[in-house]
Amino acid sequence: MRFSERAADVIDSFIMKLVSVSKEEGMISFATGLPDKRLFDMNGIAKAAAGVFERNEEAMSALQYGIVKGLPQLREKIAARCRKEMRFTADIENIFIVNGSQECFDLIGKMFIDRGDIMVTDNPGYLGALQSYSTYGPRFIGTDLNEDGPDASQLRDALKLDPKLYYSIPNHQNPSGISYSVDRRKEVAELLSGSECMMIEDDAYGELGYDGRVGPPVRSMTENVIFTGSFSKTISPGMRIGWMIVPDGMTDTATKFIESSSLHANTFSQNVMNRYLETTDIDAYLNRIRKEYKRKSRLMLDLLNDHLPSELRWNEPNGGMFIWLRTPEGTDAMQLYEAALRKKLVVMPGRPFHITGGASTIRLNFATAGDEEIKEGVGRLASAYEGLF
Amino acid sequence: MRFSERAADVIDSFIMKLVSVSKEEGMISFATGLPDKRLFDMNGIAKAAAGVFERNEEAMSALQYGIVKGLPQLREKIAARCRKEMRFTADIENIFIVNGSQECFDLIGKMFIDRGDIMVTDNPGYLGALQSYSTYGPRFIGTDLNEDGPDASQLRDALKLDPKLYYSIPNHQNPSGISYSVDRRKEVAELLSGSECMMIEDDAYGELGYDGRVGPPVRSMTENVIFTGSFSKTISPGMRIGWMIVPDGMTDTATKFIESSSLHANTFSQNVMNRYLETTDIDAYLNRIRKEYKRKSRLMLDLLNDHLPSELRWNEPNGGMFIWLRTPEGTDAMQLYEAALRKKLVVMPGRPFHITGGASTIRLNFATAGDEEIKEGVGRLASAYEGLF
Repeated sequence: MRFSERAADVIDSFIMKLVSVSKEEGMISFATGLPDKRLFDMNGIAKAAAGVFERNEEAMSALQYGIVKGLPQLREKIAARCRKEMRFTADIENIFIVNGSQECFDLIGKMFIDRGDIMVTDNPGYLGALQSYSTYGPRFIGTDLNEDGPDASQLRDALKLDPKLYYSIPNHQNPSGISYSVDRRKEVAELLSGSECMMIEDDAYGELGYDGRVGPPVRSMTENVIFTGSFSKTISPGMRIGWMIVPDGMTDTATKFIESSSLHANTFSQNVMNRYLETTDIDAYLNRIRKEYKRKSRLMLDLLNDHLPSELRWNEPNGGMFIWLRTPEGTDAMQLYEAALRKKLVVMPGRPFHITGGASTIRLNFATAGDEEIKEGVGRLASAYEGLF
Repeated sequence: MRFSERAADVIDSFIMKLVSVSKEEGMISFATGLPDKRLFDMNGIAKAAAGVFERNEEAMSALQYGIVKGLPQLREKIAARCRKEMRFTADIENIFIVNGSQECFDLIGKMFIDRGDIMVTDNPGYLGALQSYSTYGPRFIGTDLNEDGPDASQLRDALKLDPKLYYSIPNHQNPSGISYSVDRRKEVAELLSGSECMMIEDDAYGELGYDGRVGPPVRSMTENVIFTGSFSKTISPGMRIGWMIVPDGMTDTATKFIESSSLHANTFSQNVMNRYLETTDIDAYLNRIRKEYKRKSRLMLDLLNDHLPSELRWNEPNGGMFIWLRTPEGTDAMQLYEAALRKKLVVMPGRPFHITGGASTIRLNFATAGDEEIKEGVGRLASAYEGLF
């Protein structure tokens, strides 16, 4: 096979491999970013799907080709949520629905990155997105994450290198769980405004703050932002509906690239989602899942406290799906990943998320598994760790 | 905006623009490749969608993340159809479900094409696919289409330039309506087997032969083929389900590129489609739509005969959705496109489909419009043509 240079550039991602491993008999998974399937509003979505077929015109339209930007009514709902919850206004002509926010990352990489271009990213950064960008051969510069967001002096230095893009997750970051402080958001917005760098603000977990949103998006403070969102962590990842909100100068190019990549997002899914949002008290639903994820994070945290030795450290998340675990300095957490796998527990090694460092980190997802699996899984983790280092 | 070089490389496609224009009040459209929405089996698909929610496990799985290659049961059905209808066997590990076959073209371009690589394509070729490939900067070489398929001596010469890819639609080609003869299929397969070129065999219209399949796929005669298919022209384009069947040496790379581009195809749509295929007599359904498209093509052909002057020429399709119209040699059919637009009829100019030539061609879609619109539309076309050249 005579593949392109890109085929060698694109980095490996453990993610989908671990989704497959997780499906093996008897396996418990704390890996991947799968939400809790028990929380899906199956009745609500079933009703919405049935509703789409109630009127012939709507059904025919849901099964037919759509328009590149996506269903206008759905884009209006996203715009309304930005106004109400995130304090910024977006014209629906700047909102593009895509097949999950993963497609945003591919599209943005394709639109902006020539091989060798500099791109700044969280260190650690979300691996799935880094994989997308890597296809186009950027030179990644990582900015370390402190407890209140990216290290500002590192970001300032990185911006001096004239990067085209800066990729970051300000809320409940994947994998670290860190959220920017409000001050850090302002600082980042100021730095961006004084640069030619475009931030990709990934809001995948923004709706999953246990006590509500942890801060206004950077997008509400500067226009140098492509804002990406998704229903995958809240309503259903299988419906593959994500979106990006782009600055004015980007709409024509985004239209052309979506058309050439996939014509447009799934019309059927978009219609079902639109009806679902019209017929559901979405805030009540979100509060329910926030509460449940908070409860499950507490469950796992308590079990970690009870079963893991004190040389292991971890954060206490205030949103999202992940606990970020650190093995003792100098140890290789990949060994813990492998030992756990032998005990039939899949965890996600932290190293692949890093531009530099990160050997002694592990990401644990407490959202996917049920309570009994969480209990059993933490036991397996503790026993895998025993005597390892 | 500091876009990539790609942003300048990617060619314009009229297609989605014309989809938007077609939605304007009072407009009749013979442009685009939209199937007849009246033929969608709305009851059948509604039942399939409801069926997915009948059992909790299936519903949860349909709403959750899936695996990169797609739903195994759906891939098995595609493999079975290849065996039964197309005389070739494909392992389901070589079948990848994607978000419509447009995504195949983007993925294949991304996987294979470095800027400047040579790529052979039908001349005229399907514009949507050419747009995808153009993103990656290939040098296109066109092979003219004769009545029985690509000009073999041109293809032979083109293969001497060591192209990586050859893109073609052997059945009811879009836009020309031409199908390969069986002999030409064999000849193309032989030429490919003796080369390092990979054919992309686009079978989008293969199931729409009015009297059944017009010939075995090239894939049944050589392994140097990536075979692409879609439910968009038969069951529903809005559900965005296409697939590609790749040679053994390509499965790992395809997995990585799908993951980085979109993780996987829409799980919800795939489950609904799978159920639909399980609960429907798909051959009876296909026969119904073949018969209807045959009837509508006859309707438009008779009207063209009655209303257009004899210096205009067109083919008589034996499948697919298109009539390929030629204005007199030396004329610019773009003028007819513009004159028709003023009469509120959208047709598709043929020039953008061409690598070279094609100024005096127009593509007419007889599938999208209803009978009354076809009658009114041909009248508008005739009146737009009057006195034009």
